[in-house]
Amino acid sequence: MEQYFVKNVISGNSFAIDDPETFKHVAKVMRHKNGDVVYLVDTNEKLYAATITKIDVDNSQILTAVELVDSPSTEMPVAVTVACSLSKKDKIEWITQKSTELGATTIVFFDSKYSIMKWKKNVVEKKLARLQEIAKNAAQQSKRRIIPEVIYVDNLQDLLKYKAEANLVAYEESAKQGEISRLVQTLDETPKSVLCAFGPEGGFAPDEIDFLNQADFLSVGLGPRIMRAETAPMYFLSVLSYKYELTVK
Amino acid sequence: MEQYFVKNVISGNSFAIDDPETFKHVAKVMRHKNGDVVYLVDTNEKLYAATITKIDVDNSQILTAVELVDSPSTEMPVAVTVACSLSKKDKIEWITQKSTELGATTIVFFDSKYSIMKWKKNVVEKKLARLQEIAKNAAQQSKRRIIPEVIYVDNLQDLLKYKAEANLVAYEESAKQGEISRLVQTLDETPKSVLCAFGPEGGFAPDEIDFLNQADFLSVGLGPRIMRAETAPMYFLSVLSYKYELTVK
Repeated sequence: MEQYFVKNVISGNSFAIDDPETFKHVAKVMRHKNGDVVYLVDTNEKLYAATITKIDVDNSQILTAVELVDSPSTEMPVAVTVACSLSKKDKIEWITQKSTELGATTIVFFDSKYSIMKWKKNVVEKKLARLQEIAKNAAQQSKRRIIPEVIYVDNLQDLLKYKAEANLVAYEESAKQGEISRLVQTLDETPKSVLCAFGPEGGFAPDEIDFLNQADFLSVGLGPRIMRAETAPMYFLSVLSYKYELTVK
Repeated sequence: MEQYFVKNVISGNSFAIDDPETFKHVAKVMRHKNGDVVYLVDTNEKLYAATITKIDVDNSQILTAVELVDSPSTEMPVAVTVACSLSKKDKIEWITQKSTELGATTIVFFDSKYSIMKWKKNVVEKKLARLQEIAKNAAQQSKRRIIPEVIYVDNLQDLLKYKAEANLVAYEESAKQGEISRLVQTLDETPKSVLCAFGPEGGFAPDEIDFLNQADFLSVGLGPRIMRAETAPMYFLSVLSYKYELTVK
């Protein structure tokens, strides 16, 4: 059954869906009728089963009877930010979709020396809106309780604004030198929030790594194989889920 | 520096690259000259640094002086098979590429009830050849020591031929019921080989799950979020790498 995010707090026993896009999807695309049930997630991250009581075409709203669903949250117990170097449109869209499925809280794209792309100032808003839409759809499909926020920063300095309790940078040279234990050690400390930065295909420049290390980003290896730029964040997010959602102490 | 697979055992101090495709790539695409070094992996999974001594255009071969590189293997310590339900061309190509980067030993595509695709008998060979080529290129790029084998079976019964020591099936219903510990338990037992089967977007049919369970495939949940069909195998492979390559006892 589909899930939709609503921009309100749901309280009481009824709720009117009036977001134009959701209205259109429920009434026109899915052609739901009275009595059909959809899931709604409100801004308190609560999940409700919403039984359609009236599709009010004149006012473009759907009246529903709602009931709180008392199922565990689908959110990771830690807040996870993946910060990825800017890349081609299809790759960043793909990273946004997959990172959302895999539980990221925040997705930051940043400009780095060896990035093959740079966004001009006048396109940033439009591009972020498109990525935010992809994140919303993926979050609905994967039954998340929040929509990850997608952010763009045009330099590494500004990435520091989004620092978490534990900050990492995936570094190929660390992997080559056989560094294998820092990610495990970091996750064993159970930080409340984690950020990992991922370089472009050409990697980070050495001075970028120095800059990040000095800003308390720990260089970590992610195993012996060379992953493409878009694969490494998926590895990272999967590992966090395994560690914090499947591994019971 | 690029890596190429050769179809021979390298012995002694010299080696002639005569595979037409590799010759073309080294000599024409990359335009290497005498003195340049490329990496070669032979059929014994050994890595060699090969210094070009002569590019023999007349005989389409490249003579090299080879030296064994004594670096640890980039292969997973367990043999991992991902078995994925058949899907659209771009998705299975993507699964093949990413599974290779993430260390799969064998990639099986199979037909299941809710698969949206079925390969006709007369296209299987051609489609597998294309996927095998994708696997080779991804293996070279990610610096693997083997090329994963890509296999197609047109029914679940035939999937049993590829069973490993531990056999799993990723099952959404297991995840919904809060099953979180079986993957961890299975990996803790350190099997020599693991296979995990992944259903199509529509999931496995209940009788398919029964069939697999009776064939000793353990149903496992992969966390609380619903992943797309192509995302789940990536999660699985990433977790295996974390468990067996990064987590030192």
